[in-house]
Amino acid sequence: MTAPFSSLSEFRGLLAAMPAADAAAVAGAEARNGQLTKPPGALGRLEGLAIWVAGWQGTDRPRCTAPQVIVFAGNHGVVAQGVSAFPAEVTVQMVGNFRAGGAAINQLSKTFGAAMSVHELELDRPTVDFTQGAAMSEAEVVAALATGWNAVDAGADLLVVGEMGIGNTTPAAALAAALFGAAGADWVGRGTGVDDAGLARKARAVDAGLALHKAQLGDALEVLRCLGGRELAAMAGAIARARALRIPVILDGFICTASAAVLERAVAGTLDHCIAGHVSAEGAHGKLLAALGKEPLLNLGLRLGEGSGAALAIGVVKAALACHSDMATFAEAGVSGA
Amino acid sequence: MTAPFSSLSEFRGLLAAMPAADAAAVAGAEARNGQLTKPPGALGRLEGLAIWVAGWQGTDRPRCTAPQVIVFAGNHGVVAQGVSAFPAEVTVQMVGNFRAGGAAINQLSKTFGAAMSVHELELDRPTVDFTQGAAMSEAEVVAALATGWNAVDAGADLLVVGEMGIGNTTPAAALAAALFGAAGADWVGRGTGVDDAGLARKARAVDAGLALHKAQLGDALEVLRCLGGRELAAMAGAIARARALRIPVILDGFICTASAAVLERAVAGTLDHCIAGHVSAEGAHGKLLAALGKEPLLNLGLRLGEGSGAALAIGVVKAALACHSDMATFAEAGVSGA
Repeated sequence: MTAPFSSLSEFRGLLAAMPAADAAAVAGAEARNGQLTKPPGALGRLEGLAIWVAGWQGTDRPRCTAPQVIVFAGNHGVVAQGVSAFPAEVTVQMVGNFRAGGAAINQLSKTFGAAMSVHELELDRPTVDFTQGAAMSEAEVVAALATGWNAVDAGADLLVVGEMGIGNTTPAAALAAALFGAAGADWVGRGTGVDDAGLARKARAVDAGLALHKAQLGDALEVLRCLGGRELAAMAGAIARARALRIPVILDGFICTASAAVLERAVAGTLDHCIAGHVSAEGAHGKLLAALGKEPLLNLGLRLGEGSGAALAIGVVKAALACHSDMATFAEAGVSGA
Repeated sequence: MTAPFSSLSEFRGLLAAMPAADAAAVAGAEARNGQLTKPPGALGRLEGLAIWVAGWQGTDRPRCTAPQVIVFAGNHGVVAQGVSAFPAEVTVQMVGNFRAGGAAINQLSKTFGAAMSVHELELDRPTVDFTQGAAMSEAEVVAALATGWNAVDAGADLLVVGEMGIGNTTPAAALAAALFGAAGADWVGRGTGVDDAGLARKARAVDAGLALHKAQLGDALEVLRCLGGRELAAMAGAIARARALRIPVILDGFICTASAAVLERAVAGTLDHCIAGHVSAEGAHGKLLAALGKEPLLNLGLRLGEGSGAALAIGVVKAALACHSDMATFAEAGVSGA
């Protein structure tokens, strides 16, 4: 399958020409919401969620019957800096676990009726250690973006993207630092469970990457190429494709959000079709969401990745849409108003 | 159907003899949780949720395939004090809406595969205005407790109780004030949307009730009788029955939590089988949950009642159990540990 871009410049061009939400559908959904058998505002954030999905799906009675979950896996040269508690071989082992149905994301996808797929991105060819050079060439980052772009099912009505990649909280922290400023120590966290020394190594690696690629940091897509990773680029590609298809997206944790942030910093407004499914326990996720102006739906201390927190939020979105689209109005039910 | 109590004293006796969680199942579930293919603690609160359900269901691999949602409806003499934005006729109209499938709780139950039923409690015979006398006689409160007790399906594996009753945030605030102290103004909120004057009327009504029934306030079940309502008593009866059957319960909003609090204040520890599904936008709900030591799962600004916030949390519990009971272990998946 080919993607409609073969360079970062062409990809940026696509981002700049993305469709907007359907304003008439939003207005219709707002009107409907005001007539449902409940006090105004009594369903809290569920009401806004339904109206938001209405806009992207282009209907005042939106549905979620075909949610899609895609997990992208990649390996990272920066693990040479001692940034993870787990060995790099776990990435491919976990891909096997995803295929066999044994991981958390398999169970979460099943619980909420989502179709789940996993895409491994050249696991035997890790990215370059970004403290030593650019993580990817332009051809490599474009290929990863295209993998993500092509992984989205055009028939999906809601999308979750997740990741697996030993060491990938470090490139995510590097992206966040490059896109929003401050030092490595402000953006790194415990990941899968590093100790204090591991945390310090992560911060040093990020700082080294920021210093080495200083000349590229003004361009968000170059930041992705120099400091990111294949699964991070693939998530960005999938999120961009969802926008092109007007499929609403639930963002997952720190790594997913850092990938998404690249798009927002490349072209402001690109993430209007995304909500934050949760705020994870990974230290800087809350700060990253705040920088993007995204209020998380859930706060349950998850820090697993794989798309798990976002998949959990599929249930909330489904509930919001069921209420919005299938409740009776005051007139239909013969219920007196306030 | 008869209940195994015919007085508040007998009901209290049952509360004092409730079964505990299964410690062996808890230990088995904790051991299993430590072997699943994820970093320790990475599923956050989902892990503790699954272990908690394991204890009540008495198995290290708990399931949620038969959740039950019960909505109780009652009317309140205290509406004469101008405490609600909606007329009392809405209670029976909404019961019709529940029966026809048009309310939010119908849609939420359907979304998460819960069996839902509605029980109306003598809607044409409101409780006595508690500013003028005891809301219920002992026979009346016992009958309402029995309705709740008998409404629980012994085959359910998770329970949500909800309510509908125009005016019922005022008796709920009165219960909270009587059980935990402070004045009416500290516990009343906007309910379905009263204005400042309505809010002041609610506080005055609660204070008048506290003053009138001062002699009864040391006994939690007498508090329920004097200041509560039929649907509040029925919720308490259902929560007690669930404990007798070792069915875990998800508490809903302010009114449900106030009902549950009666049980906890009657016999400490009675709510160990309950979690807080959400914290509602009704002003004092967070304070009430804190008084009970319950950390809410969700915080989405709901303030509808009907069991809606708790029903939304069924999805979270289902997800937690699916991960816990069906994920692969490191050994099964051949994944290397940290």
